Amino acid sequence: NINAERLWQSLMAIGDIGHVDVPGSKVGGCHRLALSEKDLRGRQLFIDWCRAEGCSLRIDAIGNLFLRRPGRNNDLAPIVTGSHLDTQPTGGKFDGIFGCLAGLEAIRALNERGIETERPIEVVVWTNEEGARFKPAMLGSGVFAGVFTLEEALAKTDANGVTVADALLQAGYDTDNRTQTEIHRYFELHIEQGPVLEANNIDLGIVSGVLGMRWYRVHVSGQSCHAGPSPMEMRNDALVGSAKMISELTEMAAAGGPSTRCTIGELEIPSASCNVSPGEVIFSLDLREASQEALQALEDKARALIEALASARNLSVSIEQFWELPASPFDSGAIEQIRTAASEFMPAEQSMTLVSGAGHDAVYISRVAPTAMIFVPSENGLSHNEKEYTPPEQLAKGANLLLHTLLQAANS
Amino acid sequence: NINAERLWQSLMAIGDIGHVDVPGSKVGGCHRLALSEKDLRGRQLFIDWCRAEGCSLRIDAIGNLFLRRPGRNNDLAPIVTGSHLDTQPTGGKFDGIFGCLAGLEAIRALNERGIETERPIEVVVWTNEEGARFKPAMLGSGVFAGVFTLEEALAKTDANGVTVADALLQAGYDTDNRTQTEIHRYFELHIEQGPVLEANNIDLGIVSGVLGMRWYRVHVSGQSCHAGPSPMEMRNDALVGSAKMISELTEMAAAGGPSTRCTIGELEIPSASCNVSPGEVIFSLDLREASQEALQALEDKARALIEALASARNLSVSIEQFWELPASPFDSGAIEQIRTAASEFMPAEQSMTLVSGAGHDAVYISRVAPTAMIFVPSENGLSHNEKEYTPPEQLAKGANLLLHTLLQAANS
Ligand SMILES: NC(=O)NCCC(=O)O
Ligand SMILES: NC(=O)NCCC(=O)O
Repeated sequence: NINAERLWQSLMAIGDIGHVDVPGSKVGGCHRLALSEKDLRGRQLFIDWCRAEGCSLRIDAIGNLFLRRPGRNNDLAPIVTGSHLDTQPTGGKFDGIFGCLAGLEAIRALNERGIETERPIEVVVWTNEEGARFKPAMLGSGVFAGVFTLEEALAKTDANGVTVADALLQAGYDTDNRTQTEIHRYFELHIEQGPVLEANNIDLGIVSGVLGMRWYRVHVSGQSCHAGPSPMEMRNDALVGSAKMISELTEMAAAGGPSTRCTIGELEIPSASCNVSPGEVIFSLDLREASQEALQALEDKARALIEALASARNLSVSIEQFWELPASPFDSGAIEQIRTAASEFMPAEQSMTLVSGAGHDAVYISRVAPTAMIFVPSENGLSHNEKEYTPPEQLAKGANLLLHTLLQAANS
Repeated sequence: NINAERLWQSLMAIGDIGHVDVPGSKVGGCHRLALSEKDLRGRQLFIDWCRAEGCSLRIDAIGNLFLRRPGRNNDLAPIVTGSHLDTQPTGGKFDGIFGCLAGLEAIRALNERGIETERPIEVVVWTNEEGARFKPAMLGSGVFAGVFTLEEALAKTDANGVTVADALLQAGYDTDNRTQTEIHRYFELHIEQGPVLEANNIDLGIVSGVLGMRWYRVHVSGQSCHAGPSPMEMRNDALVGSAKMISELTEMAAAGGPSTRCTIGELEIPSASCNVSPGEVIFSLDLREASQEALQALEDKARALIEALASARNLSVSIEQFWELPASPFDSGAIEQIRTAASEFMPAEQSMTLVSGAGHDAVYISRVAPTAMIFVPSENGLSHNEKEYTPPEQLAKGANLLLHTLLQAANS
């Protein structure tokens, strides 16, 4: 078993780098943008800890860190676990970081007991998962999986015009390093970032895949008019039309299946004024579903609904998709491995199988290696929030399940 | 009768100062913020034209211009007409400007025919009606009517920190001039800024008063969450709640009386992100009604509706009023004078009585002098818009009604 206290201390120590005091938060938040000075300090501390456990370091051209604990047969492809160390601007100390630290804790526990494995075990730190500094998110795992070319990824810029290449070179990384390694199996442990485990009073989630997601920009146009002289029935108000769309879209999704998600996160009224009935509204739409077929059906329904409401109100509308992450079922063998490991040390009713609603590095890695994930609960379902929290006991359960899974996978 | 061609030429000539080319606009827009260099050029041209007609100029301490055509008895209080020359940042060439130019055209027509009046006639240009450069709107007429003290008005600043006092002194105006004059009757001719006259195919509106209006800020709070991991039924989305409020508030107003207005013009989601279900929304609410009692009843209904929707969705809400212009019925004698003048040169069915939904300088002046207004149609109901337009024939009809009204009032 892992050492719960050591895991917690390490997590809090790395969380001190970029710590933000937050009233009402149990451990404070964290501000550590990808490849910033703070992120580099966090990475260095993590590397030092891994090296102290006898791990060797390899850094690829996009700055992903691979820390290897050798196996008996180092010609075999490694079992890889990990996640990311970067945070949102107002992020917490668990999202991503826990996955890396739990990997390290598994190695510490194996070393402590002198347990050898057949295959090497690697802990990976993927670069720029959050997409908060450089867009898009999951850049490092995306390059590794061939979703983005190295060249396009290196050319991405932050809000100050600094490229990923600049940031890597400044960190002393070698962006020419083209060596790529095979992954035998990839397991990622992560906080759920949602309320489902907590609501079901369950400590461990076995993640069978990630919802497909598409992002759209909806542009609604009517005719602006002065709030005073225009009788209600003579208006062509784009906001009133958009409000109806938002209500009906979310009601439709609520009447859908357990995996149906529909979110309007951004809404803008260009040249808004208190006494002008808006002629134009632009809002974002985030649709998610369990399969590509279900996602397409959801999109079709959403488009039909938006267009019907627009035409009934004499509004014109355009719906433009600007991002997609296809539905990613995980590997059945990898999922089974987690389930088997779980059965060794806990009753089946203490875990549940669920689908991740959020994208993770594991989505891209699942395209190049058999992949599955483990979730622990997020208190109040909060994430991307400085109040993000998971109690030490639940973290320990997740790390133990990871340890058993890695051990099994590295010997099979 | 007035000279329609001369009126149009003058209107277009003054509109050239600050002219903005706009595709799809018949005459272009106008950008002439209060007391800006362009506004001062426009004022000077207007003063020159009035002086050429023998008018004398008086400027009060807030920069209101009074251009007087003497009567036979100059001890009598004048009949005053006018409006404003400043525009919105993306304004047109008619809002306000037409009222000033029609006053000048009435004087030109009287001079042309050598017609004397018993009372003097004054054309006034009120300072900063739009509120686009200095807030609040209707500042000059407000000071004249004692709604604001001169001191508070002079201290208002624009977006660059320039005070009204600075702007007036730079223009060479004397902000110490405390002479105030009595107004016998005040008539303001204005474009409707709405669709009612056009929809009724009527060229002239006799305005019996202005709707009472109140502005509120509504703050809706739920709990933000990640768009992916949170099932629809576990969300506490402030935007979905706000959308329902916007729908029901505007439906309630549409089911109200002919003077009921409800507009949501601004909506903000603090730290909005495409993949975050919003925890917080702030929107503006503009309510208008024909009387203070009706306005209060509308507010009560709106508050009850918002609070019921919030509590049904576990959202908290605050509603804070930040501006009011009470309902302002105009003077029955002044209204009757317009009606009598109208009956002299056109059949009754060519005009209609209506209530203004928008605030005007006439609202404040109505507190210190018997006041009424005349409206001409706005094409497509557009105003505060660079496509604002009223055809020359309709402007001429309005100016003729103003001329006849002034003539009658100045002789009675
Ligand atoms: N974990 C995460 O926030 N990924 C970004 C993509 C998403 O919205 O799911
Ligand atoms: N005419 C005008 O826009 N006045 C400002 C106050 C209002 O919204 O009615």
